[in-house]
Amino acid sequence: MLDISNRAKKYKGSPIRRISSMLEKAGNNKKIISFGGGAPSLAPPQEIIKYVEKKLEKEPQKSVAYTSTPGPTHTRKLISEDLKKEEKIDIPTDNITLTVGGTEALYSTFQTIINPGDEIITTDPCYLGYTEPIKLARGKQVRIPTYWHENFQIKEERLKEAITKKTKAMILISPDNPTGATQETKNLKAIVEICEDKKIWLITDDIYKNIVFEEKFTNSRKFGGYENTISLSSFSKSASIPGVRIGYAYGPKQVINKISELKQATSLTAPKLATLFVDKFLENKGKIKKKYLSKIVVPTYKRRRNHMKKMLKKYTDLEFAVPKGAFYYFINIGKEDEKFSNKLLEKNVVVIPGKYFGNNGKKHIRLTFVSEPKNRIEEGIKVIGEELKK
Amino acid sequence: MLDISNRAKKYKGSPIRRISSMLEKAGNNKKIISFGGGAPSLAPPQEIIKYVEKKLEKEPQKSVAYTSTPGPTHTRKLISEDLKKEEKIDIPTDNITLTVGGTEALYSTFQTIINPGDEIITTDPCYLGYTEPIKLARGKQVRIPTYWHENFQIKEERLKEAITKKTKAMILISPDNPTGATQETKNLKAIVEICEDKKIWLITDDIYKNIVFEEKFTNSRKFGGYENTISLSSFSKSASIPGVRIGYAYGPKQVINKISELKQATSLTAPKLATLFVDKFLENKGKIKKKYLSKIVVPTYKRRRNHMKKMLKKYTDLEFAVPKGAFYYFINIGKEDEKFSNKLLEKNVVVIPGKYFGNNGKKHIRLTFVSEPKNRIEEGIKVIGEELKK
Repeated sequence: MLDISNRAKKYKGSPIRRISSMLEKAGNNKKIISFGGGAPSLAPPQEIIKYVEKKLEKEPQKSVAYTSTPGPTHTRKLISEDLKKEEKIDIPTDNITLTVGGTEALYSTFQTIINPGDEIITTDPCYLGYTEPIKLARGKQVRIPTYWHENFQIKEERLKEAITKKTKAMILISPDNPTGATQETKNLKAIVEICEDKKIWLITDDIYKNIVFEEKFTNSRKFGGYENTISLSSFSKSASIPGVRIGYAYGPKQVINKISELKQATSLTAPKLATLFVDKFLENKGKIKKKYLSKIVVPTYKRRRNHMKKMLKKYTDLEFAVPKGAFYYFINIGKEDEKFSNKLLEKNVVVIPGKYFGNNGKKHIRLTFVSEPKNRIEEGIKVIGEELKK
Repeated sequence: MLDISNRAKKYKGSPIRRISSMLEKAGNNKKIISFGGGAPSLAPPQEIIKYVEKKLEKEPQKSVAYTSTPGPTHTRKLISEDLKKEEKIDIPTDNITLTVGGTEALYSTFQTIINPGDEIITTDPCYLGYTEPIKLARGKQVRIPTYWHENFQIKEERLKEAITKKTKAMILISPDNPTGATQETKNLKAIVEICEDKKIWLITDDIYKNIVFEEKFTNSRKFGGYENTISLSSFSKSASIPGVRIGYAYGPKQVINKISELKQATSLTAPKLATLFVDKFLENKGKIKKKYLSKIVVPTYKRRRNHMKKMLKKYTDLEFAVPKGAFYYFINIGKEDEKFSNKLLEKNVVVIPGKYFGNNGKKHIRLTFVSEPKNRIEEGIKVIGEELKK
């Protein structure tokens, strides 16, 4: 084969995607208990499915036509209204662009703000989907440790220490993947103030904002930063529609315009069909969204979280932080994590080795409670307990 | 606002997207006759719409679930079979990845093969969607002129002259945008041989392969190049579903794997919902596709092409090449094209200035016959005729 680019030689696939691909090939092997990937196991709201069906029936052509690159004004207006209503922030429609899930939002944000050598601060452990797009924008990921015994809080001093002249941005994700942690108000406020003071971009990854078990999500703009904050989210988790691939980014208009220009080269236009799901989900002041989240998503995942906690207490001696949002436990198991995960895999239980999320994730495993019902959670944790005792 | 990346400062939005966005804002202004954007004006095949409706109804969760990054094996297998049946080429399923339309396929191909300074050969005029992603991969676009009075054929000598030590790839698009030209067999053969001989990648953009009026599309692999050809296509034009955003790339397995790794960072996974459209379109040996193309798409566009030709003869003295595929006329009007296009816009007729497609496109305009029915084609060409006489 002819030579590929040096850039491509350094591409690195995500080990989680590898596991997903493996599971897909395994097909409907019911024996496998997955605490692995973060795929919602709930059906999406019936109303939005029905709506899209009807739209396809009544306006087939319009439903699958091109739209503008940032997406239909109507859809972005609904998002603007939702942000106003739910998070008390004022984001004009033109400051919002739709994206192919949260992933395109992240990728295009990094491409749009990072120069070669710029440093981007993340936590350690952190979502492994940041590493590759930061590298592709030729930035350098700088990690600040968080610990389970501190509830994975971002400590002000550690953040300040990590900032150098080359720091271009910091990523805040709360609720967090892989830890399920939410940042306390005083930390959020400190982060916003430090970013404003040091003139660095604050990228808030609000993918899990609707999945919170104790307190309501706080948009960091409550404490300022309208001019240096870029936020992103998606409907994959909140509406349980990850295969529709629809998300959004918002921030200062100039940067959103730039993201939209890049988007012309990466995906051309917003996916019109996908925007219909959003339209229904958010219409009538988010009536369907509110009902779906409060009656189905949050209670279901909360029950599973609680059940997993109970099972972890029952079958293991582990100590751990209980997640306040998202759908992950990140647990120190006190032994090498990848080998341990491979052993579990032999017993048909999938967990993700903590080291995939950073050096500070070594000897941890990530367990999601999004995919399996209660009885299978017990079954899987029991296997983990047995394996730990070996 | 804080500083953005130098890369982003150089982003350049497509002028065509700007026109689309303007038209979207103008809403349903029926007065505007658009010979501008390449949006199909046909309804997609009823069968695939019904199929997706039914899938959403019967398997809502599964229809919008995550899938693997390259996409469901089933869908890729159908594409492999379609390539075998229609184009007589053998492409294993694992050599295919689904993409967000043709655009993501192009972007990720360029990122995956281009090193800074590498030269990529295109024609002049050429599709303006190549320029930005080549630049984003830090490549250099090198253009070889084609002319209407040569039916926009790529001349072997000009291609050979353009090749230097830095040439990394050549892009072949036949049928072509903006000219509607198809390359003659002897030219295709010469291109394949030159690329193999000079060890450069051949990227075939087969977006319009199903929209041909005289002869069947010829896959360049008929003449070799399995090891150095990367091809892409999409269902936007063939199934009239541009807002679904589904396309694919195929080529040597190693390069497709690399594209797929990049895809994890740009769009995470194939859009499951979108793959359902493809499944139905291609099932049963492409029965629906075949019927839709032969009974609706090709005859409709052919009638409009012929009608536009007739109207151009009736209302103007212009000489031009008649397109053999795709849905564009690219016509030398003998005067400055952007001003002329702006004047037409005042009269509610949209055409695209030829210079957007390259220096050799100056004094040309691109007219698409995809969007308007026959009576409106006459109306619009009449306005063009009047304006030309001024």
